[in-house]
Amino acid sequence: MIRETNISPSHVRGVQHYQMKTVTDAIRGNLTVGEFGIEVPFIPARYFVTHSIPSTQTRGEHAHRTCEQFLVCVHGSCSVTVDDGHKRESFRLDHPGTALYIPAMVWAVEFDHSRDSALLVLASHRYDPDDYIRDYEAFLREVLKP
Amino acid sequence: MIRETNISPSHVRGVQHYQMKTVTDAIRGNLTVGEFGIEVPFIPARYFVTHSIPSTQTRGEHAHRTCEQFLVCVHGSCSVTVDDGHKRESFRLDHPGTALYIPAMVWAVEFDHSRDSALLVLASHRYDPDDYIRDYEAFLREVLKP
Repeated sequence: MIRETNISPSHVRGVQHYQMKTVTDAIRGNLTVGEFGIEVPFIPARYFVTHSIPSTQTRGEHAHRTCEQFLVCVHGSCSVTVDDGHKRESFRLDHPGTALYIPAMVWAVEFDHSRDSALLVLASHRYDPDDYIRDYEAFLREVLKP
Repeated sequence: MIRETNISPSHVRGVQHYQMKTVTDAIRGNLTVGEFGIEVPFIPARYFVTHSIPSTQTRGEHAHRTCEQFLVCVHGSCSVTVDDGHKRESFRLDHPGTALYIPAMVWAVEFDHSRDSALLVLASHRYDPDDYIRDYEAFLREVLKP
């Protein structure tokens, strides 16, 4: 069975929830796929995977000034809260075929990881510590400035 | 604990086995990271994830004429056999921090997937059915031609 890509907007500026193209086959196994610059709205410069995260831990808790991110919980599940300074929304990523696009200047927190979660993050830019805003009040000042 | 990237050549032309940079933290959880065009020797055009593969199934069983691939078993484990027409070698991918680079014109087969395996493949090119060589004898004719 083939399920085509579906992209849903969220209440948070620029954040989009994805159902990626997925091919389900009980005999051969399942495959989910995305093309960069097409479904995924950027060409990635970097990837990282977080895993073995205690369920009590939060990750993220920052915004990026320029970096965009695309999150795929490749195994297990985790929740992500996104916040643009005006609106906040949470998503549960619990299948490799679901994904979340987070543009720059959106605060994001990952939490409630299942014991077996493995979260793939594709990032539009190389690691740059100056691109991070790690203080929520500072984020609000930057994002809400007239 | 931070473990830096380590790249090991294989016996098969161009195939490289990677230990990606990994940050291990018992409290916060673990992270493994790679940059495209640096450790990963190309900028990806596409990703796919295979999962829920029965252990009796093989996947792959083809070579690409131009597409390069970077394989990360993000959860669980699987084996990969690579073959350049002269030499053949198998690798077990059993940690998100290990990866395998497969250049063009190398035959590859994935097999012996654990029940919980999720294999991330980053590909240098978009999907193109004409880039696949699906017959091993045809692959040998192309790769061994003088």
